[in-house]
Amino acid sequence: MSDEELPGSASRRQFVAGLTAAGGLLASGRGVALTPPPAPDPTRVPGASVSTLGARSPYETLKRVPAYNIISLTPLESLHGTITPADLHFERHHGGVPHIDPASHELLIHGMVDKPLKFSLDELKRFPSVTRTCFIECSGNLDIRAGEKSSPQVLCGLTSQSEWTGVALGTLLREAGVKPKASWFLAEGSDAAVLTRSIPLAKAWDDALVVYAQNGEAIRPEQGYPMRLLLPGWEGNTNVKWLRRLELSDAPFMTREETSKYTDPLKDDTARMFSVVMDARSVITSPTFPQVLHKGWQEIRGLAWSGRGRITSVDVSVDGGKHWQAAQLQGPVLAKAHTRFSLPWRWDGSPAEISSRATDETGYVQPTRRQLIDARGPGGQLYHLNPVMSWIVQGDGQVIYKAEPWV
Amino acid sequence: MSDEELPGSASRRQFVAGLTAAGGLLASGRGVALTPPPAPDPTRVPGASVSTLGARSPYETLKRVPAYNIISLTPLESLHGTITPADLHFERHHGGVPHIDPASHELLIHGMVDKPLKFSLDELKRFPSVTRTCFIECSGNLDIRAGEKSSPQVLCGLTSQSEWTGVALGTLLREAGVKPKASWFLAEGSDAAVLTRSIPLAKAWDDALVVYAQNGEAIRPEQGYPMRLLLPGWEGNTNVKWLRRLELSDAPFMTREETSKYTDPLKDDTARMFSVVMDARSVITSPTFPQVLHKGWQEIRGLAWSGRGRITSVDVSVDGGKHWQAAQLQGPVLAKAHTRFSLPWRWDGSPAEISSRATDETGYVQPTRRQLIDARGPGGQLYHLNPVMSWIVQGDGQVIYKAEPWV
Repeated sequence: MSDEELPGSASRRQFVAGLTAAGGLLASGRGVALTPPPAPDPTRVPGASVSTLGARSPYETLKRVPAYNIISLTPLESLHGTITPADLHFERHHGGVPHIDPASHELLIHGMVDKPLKFSLDELKRFPSVTRTCFIECSGNLDIRAGEKSSPQVLCGLTSQSEWTGVALGTLLREAGVKPKASWFLAEGSDAAVLTRSIPLAKAWDDALVVYAQNGEAIRPEQGYPMRLLLPGWEGNTNVKWLRRLELSDAPFMTREETSKYTDPLKDDTARMFSVVMDARSVITSPTFPQVLHKGWQEIRGLAWSGRGRITSVDVSVDGGKHWQAAQLQGPVLAKAHTRFSLPWRWDGSPAEISSRATDETGYVQPTRRQLIDARGPGGQLYHLNPVMSWIVQGDGQVIYKAEPWV
Repeated sequence: MSDEELPGSASRRQFVAGLTAAGGLLASGRGVALTPPPAPDPTRVPGASVSTLGARSPYETLKRVPAYNIISLTPLESLHGTITPADLHFERHHGGVPHIDPASHELLIHGMVDKPLKFSLDELKRFPSVTRTCFIECSGNLDIRAGEKSSPQVLCGLTSQSEWTGVALGTLLREAGVKPKASWFLAEGSDAAVLTRSIPLAKAWDDALVVYAQNGEAIRPEQGYPMRLLLPGWEGNTNVKWLRRLELSDAPFMTREETSKYTDPLKDDTARMFSVVMDARSVITSPTFPQVLHKGWQEIRGLAWSGRGRITSVDVSVDGGKHWQAAQLQGPVLAKAHTRFSLPWRWDGSPAEISSRATDETGYVQPTRRQLIDARGPGGQLYHLNPVMSWIVQGDGQVIYKAEPWV
C-alpha cells in the first residue's frame, strides 16, 4: 500500500472533494419525488417500545440466495465491514440441516488415543476458551457458468466470516492422550450424510478449534449447532458441522468427500487430493452488477482473504489489467480472515474494466483465469477456483460481470 | 500478563488435566436421565432444506431484559467472544424507536461551516468507508440497588459491542468547510425526544464516525437506523442515534441531556459536566448468578474495556481482594473495545469471593466501590459508576452477587 492511498492523502482528498463538486449532488435537496411517500415525521410520534429481541428495519430485506437445495449464498455486495450476520452466513450441506438437541449431543474422541473421551456441550464450555475471527469458504465457490448479469453473491457467495469461540482441539487431544504413531484424524458430522473428512493431525496442534459460538451466541443450526470443527483457512467441508466424532489414525480414511469429491483433476490426468488450504483471493463487492454508476467518484470496495495467513496487498486495475494500483486495507488485518480493501476511483463515463488481485504473506499472488485453466486442464472446473475477476462498466453506467468461458 | 497465565503453561495444563481427572466427569456417559427426551437420531432423518435467512436453534432462547420501558439489557453472561449479536445489543432511548424511511432521511451539517450540506444515506455510502469494532456503553450502566440474586445482564447489561462501518466525520466536515472559530458541534437525533448532545469538535477530527452498518448489515432500528454518530469510547447517548443534524458552534449548546441529566454530582456540591469518556471497567461473566458450581476447575471469564484506549491487564482475585492474579487477554486487543479475559481456577468447595480489576493503557486502574463513593459523595449514584464488582461462591456452589449499599 503506497502513501498515495492513505486517508487524508492527496488522492483521497481529491476523491471526497470530487463527490460534492459533482453537480451539487450533495449540496442541496435532491429535487426528486420520493417514492414511496415518506413515513410520518418520526419526531412527531412516539417511537416503539423496548423489546426483548431486535429486528431488522422493514426497509432492509437482505436474503441468502438458495440454489440446488444444497447451498445458499451470502449477499457479499450488500454487506459492510468483515462480519457476516449469522443468519446470512452461507449454507452448504450434504444431508440437510439436522435437528439436534444439545442435551443429547456428545463429541467422542477415540482411535489411537490413550483414553477415549466423550464431551457434552456443557463440558466443552468448561475448558479454556479461544475466540478467533476467520472466514469459511466452500472450495466450490465459483460459478464458472454464470452470465454477465451475475452479482458477487451468485458468483461466489460461498464465503462468510464469523467470530468463533470454542476450545483448542489440541487441548482436548492432550486430555485423551495421542498415541505416537497417530498422524491423521477423521472428523464426522451428526447429519443425515454423516459427512466425514480426514485431517492431518498437525492441523489439530496448529490452530484447529471445536467451536460452539458464532458472533457471540450459539452457532446457528446451518453452521453446525451445537458444535463444529473449525480449521482456519481450510476448505469449508473440512470444518465438519454437527461434529460428533474424532477418530485418530495413522493414515487418512479416504472418505467419499476426499476421493470421489473435493479433489482437483489436473491436466496430466492425475488429481490433487487433500488440497484443503484455500488460496488467496479477492472479490470486488462494489461496483458490481446490478449497480448503475453515475459519473464521478466511487469507492471501489471488496474483500480479500487467504487460507495461508494475512493478506499483504490487494491491487486494483480499472483498465482491464494494464495498470494496477495498491488498494487500502482496513485494519486490523487478521490471518485467514476476510480483509476489506478500498480504492477511490473517478469514473469519467467511458467504458472501463475493474479487477482486483490479492497477495498474501507467503508471497502467493491470486492467479488469472487463464493461469488456472492452463494448470488444471479441462477437468479442473469445480474446486479451488480463485481467479482474478473483472467487472465491466458500460458507457451507460451499467456494471456487468466479465463472463468468459472456462476453456 | 505473566508467563504463568499463558496457554500451555504449567497452570493451564494443570487446569485442563483437572477437568477430566475430577470424578471421571468427561471420561464416560454422564449417567443422568436426559430431559426432555432426545430428538430423533439426526443421522437417520433428512435435515431441513436451505433457507434464505437462518434462525436460531429452538433450544437457544437468549433475550434482552427490558426495564422501565426505556432500556433493554444485553445478556453478557450468556455471550461468548466480543461481538454482540445485533438483536441483543442493549437499547436505551428517550422517545422510543422511531420508524424511519431511509429514502426520506437526511443528515444536515450547518452552523459555523463554509457551505451547509445535506447527505442522504446513499450519498454517505459513496464516501470512503471506515470499519471499526468498539463498544458502546450507557453511562448509567450500574444498578446500585440490585440484590444478590442479580446476573451481569441485570447489573450492567447496558454495554454491547459491534463492528461498525460508516464515514469519518472529519471527511464530511472537510466537505462543509469548518470555520476557524468552531469548537463544538451539536448532534441531533430524529426521534420523538429529538435528543441532542454537544460534542467538542476535537472528537470529530479524532475518531468520530457517522455509521450506517453494524455487524456487516444495516444498523438495527434500536441502534439508530439508518445512521448514527459513533464516538468510540464515549458515553452511550453522545453516540446520537437516528442522526439528522450536526450544527457547528463556538460553544456547547447546554442541552437537557448535558445539564439536568448526564452530569456527575460531586461531594463538594459541584458537578462534573461533559464527563463523556467511559472509564476502564471489567465485568466477570462466569461464574456469576445464577450459576451453581461443582468442585474442580472452572474458567473465570469476563469482559474488560476502556474508553481511553486498550486494556493492558485485568487482575482477578478469588479471595476477596487479598491476592490478585493476571488474567489472560484474548487478542487482538483493540482500543476502546470489549476485551475477553480468562483465568483458570480450581474451586475446592469452600466459600470464595471472586473479583476483577482492569487497567488501561493510560495507567488508569478500575476503582473500588469505596473509592467511587468517597470521590462522588451521596449525589453521585447514577452515572459513570465502574467499581470492581465481586461474586460470592457459597459452600453449596451457588454464586451470588456481592450486593453492598452505595453509601
